[in-house]
Amino acid sequence: MHARNTTARALDYCDVRTTTERLAAPLSAEDQTVQSMPDASPTKWHRAHTTWFFETFLLGPHAPWYEPFRSEYAYLFNSYYEAAGPRHARPERGLITRPGIAEIADYRAHVDAAMLKLLDTSPSEEVAALAELGLHHEQQHQELIVMDIKHALSRHPFPTGYGDLPWARREACGPSTRWLGFDAGIVEIGHDGEGFAFDNEGPRHTELVHAFEIADRLVTCGQWLDFMADNGYRRPELWMSAGWAEVQASGWEAPEYWHHEDGEWQVFGLGGLAPVDRSAPVEHISWFEADAYARWADARLPLEAEWEVAVGAYQSRDKTSDWHGQVWQWTASPYSPYTGFRPAVGAVGEYNGKFMVNQYVLRGSCHATPPGHASDTYRNFFPTHSRWMFAGLRLARDITA
Amino acid sequence: MHARNTTARALDYCDVRTTTERLAAPLSAEDQTVQSMPDASPTKWHRAHTTWFFETFLLGPHAPWYEPFRSEYAYLFNSYYEAAGPRHARPERGLITRPGIAEIADYRAHVDAAMLKLLDTSPSEEVAALAELGLHHEQQHQELIVMDIKHALSRHPFPTGYGDLPWARREACGPSTRWLGFDAGIVEIGHDGEGFAFDNEGPRHTELVHAFEIADRLVTCGQWLDFMADNGYRRPELWMSAGWAEVQASGWEAPEYWHHEDGEWQVFGLGGLAPVDRSAPVEHISWFEADAYARWADARLPLEAEWEVAVGAYQSRDKTSDWHGQVWQWTASPYSPYTGFRPAVGAVGEYNGKFMVNQYVLRGSCHATPPGHASDTYRNFFPTHSRWMFAGLRLARDITA
Amino acid sequence: MHARNTTARALDYCDVRTTTERLAAPLSAEDQTVQSMPDASPTKWHRAHTTWFFETFLLGPHAPWYEPFRSEYAYLFNSYYEAAGPRHARPERGLITRPGIAEIADYRAHVDAAMLKLLDTSPSEEVAALAELGLHHEQQHQELIVMDIKHALSRHPFPTGYGDLPWARREACGPSTRWLGFDAGIVEIGHDGEGFAFDNEGPRHTELVHAFEIADRLVTCGQWLDFMADNGYRRPELWMSAGWAEVQASGWEAPEYWHHEDGEWQVFGLGGLAPVDRSAPVEHISWFEADAYARWADARLPLEAEWEVAVGAYQSRDKTSDWHGQVWQWTASPYSPYTGFRPAVGAVGEYNGKFMVNQYVLRGSCHATPPGHASDTYRNFFPTHSRWMFAGLRLARDITA
Amino acid sequence: MHARNTTARALDYCDVRTTTERLAAPLSAEDQTVQSMPDASPTKWHRAHTTWFFETFLLGPHAPWYEPFRSEYAYLFNSYYEAAGPRHARPERGLITRPGIAEIADYRAHVDAAMLKLLDTSPSEEVAALAELGLHHEQQHQELIVMDIKHALSRHPFPTGYGDLPWARREACGPSTRWLGFDAGIVEIGHDGEGFAFDNEGPRHTELVHAFEIADRLVTCGQWLDFMADNGYRRPELWMSAGWAEVQASGWEAPEYWHHEDGEWQVFGLGGLAPVDRSAPVEHISWFEADAYARWADARLPLEAEWEVAVGAYQSRDKTSDWHGQVWQWTASPYSPYTGFRPAVGAVGEYNGKFMVNQYVLRGSCHATPPGHASDTYRNFFPTHSRWMFAGLRLARDITA
Repeated sequence: MHARNTTARALDYCDVRTTTERLAAPLSAEDQTVQSMPDASPTKWHRAHTTWFFETFLLGPHAPWYEPFRSEYAYLFNSYYEAAGPRHARPERGLITRPGIAEIADYRAHVDAAMLKLLDTSPSEEVAALAELGLHHEQQHQELIVMDIKHALSRHPFPTGYGDLPWARREACGPSTRWLGFDAGIVEIGHDGEGFAFDNEGPRHTELVHAFEIADRLVTCGQWLDFMADNGYRRPELWMSAGWAEVQASGWEAPEYWHHEDGEWQVFGLGGLAPVDRSAPVEHISWFEADAYARWADARLPLEAEWEVAVGAYQSRDKTSDWHGQVWQWTASPYSPYTGFRPAVGAVGEYNGKFMVNQYVLRGSCHATPPGHASDTYRNFFPTHSRWMFAGLRLARDITA
Repeated sequence: MHARNTTARALDYCDVRTTTERLAAPLSAEDQTVQSMPDASPTKWHRAHTTWFFETFLLGPHAPWYEPFRSEYAYLFNSYYEAAGPRHARPERGLITRPGIAEIADYRAHVDAAMLKLLDTSPSEEVAALAELGLHHEQQHQELIVMDIKHALSRHPFPTGYGDLPWARREACGPSTRWLGFDAGIVEIGHDGEGFAFDNEGPRHTELVHAFEIADRLVTCGQWLDFMADNGYRRPELWMSAGWAEVQASGWEAPEYWHHEDGEWQVFGLGGLAPVDRSAPVEHISWFEADAYARWADARLPLEAEWEVAVGAYQSRDKTSDWHGQVWQWTASPYSPYTGFRPAVGAVGEYNGKFMVNQYVLRGSCHATPPGHASDTYRNFFPTHSRWMFAGLRLARDITA
Repeated sequence: MHARNTTARALDYCDVRTTTERLAAPLSAEDQTVQSMPDASPTKWHRAHTTWFFETFLLGPHAPWYEPFRSEYAYLFNSYYEAAGPRHARPERGLITRPGIAEIADYRAHVDAAMLKLLDTSPSEEVAALAELGLHHEQQHQELIVMDIKHALSRHPFPTGYGDLPWARREACGPSTRWLGFDAGIVEIGHDGEGFAFDNEGPRHTELVHAFEIADRLVTCGQWLDFMADNGYRRPELWMSAGWAEVQASGWEAPEYWHHEDGEWQVFGLGGLAPVDRSAPVEHISWFEADAYARWADARLPLEAEWEVAVGAYQSRDKTSDWHGQVWQWTASPYSPYTGFRPAVGAVGEYNGKFMVNQYVLRGSCHATPPGHASDTYRNFFPTHSRWMFAGLRLARDITA
Repeated sequence: MHARNTTARALDYCDVRTTTERLAAPLSAEDQTVQSMPDASPTKWHRAHTTWFFETFLLGPHAPWYEPFRSEYAYLFNSYYEAAGPRHARPERGLITRPGIAEIADYRAHVDAAMLKLLDTSPSEEVAALAELGLHHEQQHQELIVMDIKHALSRHPFPTGYGDLPWARREACGPSTRWLGFDAGIVEIGHDGEGFAFDNEGPRHTELVHAFEIADRLVTCGQWLDFMADNGYRRPELWMSAGWAEVQASGWEAPEYWHHEDGEWQVFGLGGLAPVDRSAPVEHISWFEADAYARWADARLPLEAEWEVAVGAYQSRDKTSDWHGQVWQWTASPYSPYTGFRPAVGAVGEYNGKFMVNQYVLRGSCHATPPGHASDTYRNFFPTHSRWMFAGLRLARDITA
């Protein structure tokens, strides 16, 4: 089991950095350059931005001997850190042809050499913590690389897949067979201080949970096909008002990447086009779709506290479970700060807090999440209409006396 | 004290209906026709839509003898009830010149006569409940009439005000002088079943509240001017990321309706343009602005449970309080269903539930809320960028041990 | 025959001004307020703007005793005269509820009284010429009133027509039966100095015309139905590239205001919805459609010099002709200045010249053109995608040796 | 002198094809992949599309033994030929990462081998003519490659230039010193049948030209700076109405690629950023700007017939003239078919005719036009707002008796 908070071990710098390069390796210079929508970024931008993170937050303040690789990179590869200075407009990342991928490889090597030097000499606790953050940040971008390139490749009229990830994909579990029940009570959730966590996972705090039950398995593609067959995408009463408007405006009639051809549903995956597998967890659905499905199934999405309580209770008992490693799971919880939340001090304080509005929390992890990155307290988040991440759902419902 | 759940009295049909007409009376046929933005509606549309509500949900199903006024109105004046059939596109309400205001007055009279006949003959409990809902619905639209016409009049290059409301405006209380403290604990919130409530106010249920304190008064225009003077609209670190993007895109530098002229801030109000009054509660601010102000003030917005607990404890002790009747108060709570929430059965079930996403809750009421409509459990809601409603804020903060 | 340059008579001030009010009379205050698209203007705006023209260009400079009605009107009712000062944004004309129609009637009366006084006292030649221009300007807006209100009324889900114009509609002539031939040669076109003309009609000058023939009648709705039946709207080879893009983007499959209902084509006209009349001239087509039709018919649109030569030769011989009074006729001529063209001096010089780009010329006049306004040298102009004016076509083709 | 219709020689297949590759050679795979705006295309797309032209119009119909390189290319690299089947959406050309530049080089080699085989065996007149068209088509795309990559490189926050073209840039001539006068008369213009011409250059035909004079030199950057210093971009009376709207909407205050830095105007050129050279012809201006400049200079743009007459009379006398080889010259002529114009039969008939609306003609050629491609009868065309092509102007004016 690869959940982060169980093992609480530090990531290895070289392992993580090498994994990024292994993810980029099958992609040509052309592939690594395009940005297929404003939400996505080019592969080569991800490679450079994760490097910029180490340069800006570690080497700049803590390695006086460090020579920046190119002064312009501070502008080109800042993502959203206002405190780190001005930055290039996000929707125009696909126009930056220079530096090319060879120069970015040089940039990575330059920073890696300096980072190894810095880490080699018994770094301070602050440096160690920032390095740990930089590695988890890079793992997040590893998953983004996969999401973004999948989207870019899908826009081709004759799409070819990305290919295999550098790590094995776990078997899917099939449809749910039972509901796991929980009594009402005050529970503790959030990161407990052992090992690494992002700032948005804390502080650990109490919440009141009402009696509920939660499905032991994810919703599958087969179940989703049943929803579609029952006109799920054509019945406004199943949808939130904003969701129904999105269905109409975007012409949704199936998850992202599904295509109806010759009477059969095909899905574009990392391996290319293939028939939909009924036993696999459904993925690439928006919150709106997850919410509508749950209503159709006479259930609801779990709150994040419910999810966290359940995973703690059941994950270890069920070695083949799908709480992690398959698809992110939409919750009914808008992304808000935990009680007592305080952003980290300095520019890294912009990491999570400033996004805590108009998004919903997803829990678990997915097949594109790098091993060692997942955690039971992880709070992923996306807007309600986003579909390009590997998101699915698990049902929950109230227990009423 | 005009809070609804205290008095729990039924509204009087003629009173409410007449109030709508009194609100429209100062407005010409031209004024009542325009729609100044997609979110707003023409006055004459509000007058017709509230009438359509009685015709559709009361007279249609429960008065077999009733003759509809015009068959087309079912299409023209449905707002968003999918179950009530197709409807006219919302952004095009301003193009509907016919019927004119005289015919709409006839429509109202026609429906009023039928409604009085229906209500006169000891109506069933269902009819009585729907009539009560219709009247509270009409009161909501009374406030919308005021909001929407204010916006329309403001778009004129030489704006004139609306004039006095049919009810008195309460005195403002001035700035806050103390924090009201509350211990952590399990509290009950939501409507308790006495008197009328909208479906989204229930069920009454328990929540865990952490120790907090809340300001006894609203934030004033004077305090807001201090925030502006301290570059509040120019410091990204005070804002949520999406809020900062909105500041840039919309060029916000003050609340809606504020204009800087000859070195002084003027504000367009119902009475026309006037200098900003430092002691009045600030209004026409978005959630983004309220949130940024709170961060600047080293505080936060209250959660809705906190607000409801506080109002219960302090309102009756402080006869001049501003919990109600001044401005709606943004909370830190995304608009989500209460645990155990079930929408009402039938078309009126579309009233609230389907909007419970991507909005934030406001509590209290405002000077444009008709007397008798306000309630301590009322859950108003708007998107985070909206500014045309009469919204302000009250600060809260954690008590840490 | 009502062609302007034949009679060369001055228009009567009271006649023209009264006709505007007769056009507005059937329209309610609500009808007169809406703007259904950025290209159109509210009726009450037209009534005020035409009045502003007299106030600004006649009374202001030439009647020292004149008291402006309201100083704000200079801003509100300027259409596009940069030299006359700043002005209200065109797309927001529909938001100006005040002044209402009663006050606009007062404004018209106020200006009329002053104008009559000015004109009564043997005005200078300059004043007389400006007054003549003001009246022809007002006649142009009379036609715009009809076009614009037709568009506004058409947007209603249950549309009712405008009703009869204050002047009689002429009978349609039916389809063309012969080609009128002309030899190559140098011809003179443009206004010859007798009677009123707009500046864009001159100077009279020579052009070289190649041998051509032109249809004696307009293209009819029956012929247009044949074009549609032959897939005219679905064959890209018939269309200009930009026209085909517009067909796709706008979903054109028939002229504006045509609706297919119960297997029959209905058309919304000034009298309301009615079946398409096969013998009537087709109207409400864009230049793109006229051009595609001509290509389908193995012909082309006439150049404006060809049209002007032909009308001079044939109009008087054929008392029932349709050169004037039915529909404007698209030409193959982009709207460019005539050789030697010079705009008038002063603000009225902005009348025509600054629009001489990216538009095409239409010739003739239509059933909504006020009597006395039409002229054989008149150069009307619209962009290639516009359809809300009363535009049709007449075919031409080369004569090759 | 490199004008095409003087020499009338056939282009050499290998020369032209090699030149394209020389133009692409300094560009990396990343550079060749981006599309910086919908009007532009990636370099690698140009390389493939020009190849597709030979494959589709030459090899497909005329070389039965030819094996297409990849069947998908027919879809990917069709630009706008409706008759050649469906095609990929133009604004999405930048998303097509595959094929990469190596595979496109293979594609070019594959087609080149087949083309040489086809041309080797005494091709029919039709094949020879289509091959000639294909080579001139490729030369047009060579210029587009330069325009498009210049635009893409300019979007970089720290832009670097493209570098030298494979051919020499001619010296600029400096400002105009005299007007060349012409009497009125009937002239012949258009291609006369000798050597290659595009279909839009014919038929040769008569036009009536009024007495005019035309400047012997192009307008220079120094003159443009004078226009700017005289508030040329801030005076609406100098502009067409649509041009003024564009100035406001786009914030134009200088030609495209000009930047004001440290009190000096810099311009981004193929060689990178450099100070504006006052003696060089101004380039990268829209028709709107050229027209406004001419009005400011109390002149006008020449008609295309005037330009063609003048170039015929003066070019050979003035060996250092700038009629060709510096910048394209905007004319006052909307792009319309010549009298008697008939598009070529078949898919290549879509080459020019379907674009003859809403554009203006440019005459001459520019420094990025490949040697051997320019012609005195060439009709280039762009919309009135376009600025990314190498366009400048030459003044003309009427001679009045």
